[in-house]
Amino acid sequence: MPAIGPEGIECPRHIAIVGLGLIGGSLALRLRAAGVRVSAWNHRPHPYAAARAAGIDCKDSLEELVSDNPDVIVLCNPLVAMPKLLKTLKPIIDPSRTTLTDVGSVKGLVREQVHAAGITDCYVGAHPMTGNEHSGWSAADPDIFDNALWALTYDHHTEYARIVQVAGMITRGLRNTLIVIDDETHDRAASLISHMPHVVSTALINELTDNPYRNIAAALSAGSWRDMTRVALTDPDRTAAMVVENAANVEELLRNMAKRLESFADALHDDDSAAIHRFFTEGQPYRDYKAKQRTAFDTGETQTVFTTLKISADDWRRDLLDSAMRGEHIVRFTSGHHALAERQFTI
Amino acid sequence: MPAIGPEGIECPRHIAIVGLGLIGGSLALRLRAAGVRVSAWNHRPHPYAAARAAGIDCKDSLEELVSDNPDVIVLCNPLVAMPKLLKTLKPIIDPSRTTLTDVGSVKGLVREQVHAAGITDCYVGAHPMTGNEHSGWSAADPDIFDNALWALTYDHHTEYARIVQVAGMITRGLRNTLIVIDDETHDRAASLISHMPHVVSTALINELTDNPYRNIAAALSAGSWRDMTRVALTDPDRTAAMVVENAANVEELLRNMAKRLESFADALHDDDSAAIHRFFTEGQPYRDYKAKQRTAFDTGETQTVFTTLKISADDWRRDLLDSAMRGEHIVRFTSGHHALAERQFTI
Repeated sequence: MPAIGPEGIECPRHIAIVGLGLIGGSLALRLRAAGVRVSAWNHRPHPYAAARAAGIDCKDSLEELVSDNPDVIVLCNPLVAMPKLLKTLKPIIDPSRTTLTDVGSVKGLVREQVHAAGITDCYVGAHPMTGNEHSGWSAADPDIFDNALWALTYDHHTEYARIVQVAGMITRGLRNTLIVIDDETHDRAASLISHMPHVVSTALINELTDNPYRNIAAALSAGSWRDMTRVALTDPDRTAAMVVENAANVEELLRNMAKRLESFADALHDDDSAAIHRFFTEGQPYRDYKAKQRTAFDTGETQTVFTTLKISADDWRRDLLDSAMRGEHIVRFTSGHHALAERQFTI
Repeated sequence: MPAIGPEGIECPRHIAIVGLGLIGGSLALRLRAAGVRVSAWNHRPHPYAAARAAGIDCKDSLEELVSDNPDVIVLCNPLVAMPKLLKTLKPIIDPSRTTLTDVGSVKGLVREQVHAAGITDCYVGAHPMTGNEHSGWSAADPDIFDNALWALTYDHHTEYARIVQVAGMITRGLRNTLIVIDDETHDRAASLISHMPHVVSTALINELTDNPYRNIAAALSAGSWRDMTRVALTDPDRTAAMVVENAANVEELLRNMAKRLESFADALHDDDSAAIHRFFTEGQPYRDYKAKQRTAFDTGETQTVFTTLKISADDWRRDLLDSAMRGEHIVRFTSGHHALAERQFTI
């Protein structure tokens, strides 16, 4: 575990990246720019010349990467490659010297795969809130991590020290912030703000495509339609895969949404103005939250309020989850089971 | 009825505007810029000095506006003011000399109000696809009509000659295009691409607000969530009013959407990969249509294909609706029951 200095936990000294795509490549470049020792392995060596020129120590095999005993290995490979990679890792990783993490957008499934491979104990889940529509090393750009928030995830096996260690990479190596939550909360939240809305957006274009007056409707459409269907235009196979990886949560939320739409349809049918009014005021706390964010942005008032978290040794999971639920983003872990967090606007 | 010249039907010579707000003001300014005689009445005279400076003949009363026998009166007042205005108009409008139209975003309801006031025969429904988040004369700008498409609407009372007359204002006075459809098709299309999606967007923010992990979800949210909930942040009272004005159509579409979401939830539950695949390919014709539009825009290839419509005297409603369904936008009505239309990409 890295030392805790006056600026909180240090960045681990040697970080190994598996997969030099958009995220892995950007991560490697940003860590190098912060002076961290970075090694990497990619399933094909085509990015190696450019990566080596940027000071990244590219390895010929996964075995070679792992045998160096890096402090942290970050799996940035596609999810489909995960089971095979983990199987290769298992006999060669030394959990007493290395922590394993990843950047996948679904945490429960990765945890299951890590567990199935028998390397649960040295694993910490991670998901950086960044990315764009591009992919591959050629799109790698350290700036995609500017102001990024990470979710680190745990289950009952996870060791607190490893959370703090990966947090060091995030807060010092990348100058990012983080929240610490359980896998299930992560996956539920991701289905709420991304996976389920992708399905809803797709249902909208299906409804239009199915309508005999579709060309008239499309001719009359404006900004609201364009905004609500933009994500339905992205690669449907990628969306389908993403939704299936988080199926149980998406299913539950879709049923909730269907109930909300049916219930509002009933209110319209019955001309129930009280129910209609209720429907349109229910989300007011969210509108207020967005208005506060907007005002702060427009006026340039940062109003950053810091708070010190005392994290209990036994109940650190609950303490960190509660902090995330209060809308706090951790800026750094400090000594003696403390962390410094920034308070965000809340809903 | 205006003359039909070599460039098709002329613009009516004298157009009266009721309500100098964003739409009415912009319309008046654009018609003036085209050299059309424009008179106007506003329920409060505050825009009159500026409007007069722009050559708009502002009247002290609705009676005074109407007694001049303008060729076309365009109602640009808020929907709530409609019944009272129509009652005032009824005894003073001369249907043999004046055609009445409006710019409301729901056509069935306006038609009912016009019918209730007993002035059905001289009425043509109209809805320009323009506007922005501002309102009032101070926001009026003739450029908001650049490249605007109008929907003109009919019922079984509507006279073809009045459709052509209002089309003259649109194609020659404003240099816009139009489609001609029945009220119900208009209102169904509008509910599909605007009113129902507004409800869906609102249901999304309600779902988030209701979730105990809402602050975590909001922290993890990115572009897809932002796009899909933007319209839920607009004035909920205005949205509620808009939805209620088109209640039956919105109700039906919400029930369709609820069924689509439930059925996809079932597919996820059953891990039915064929059904999941089907859901994600159903809207492919719409994705292809947007891709064609995008490519044409990116390459600057306009590829405008014109077609001449022969409109039968008896079945003009069907002929014009069919044209709209084929994705044609009318550029001008020409002599002998013909029109020139631009073919758009279709779904």
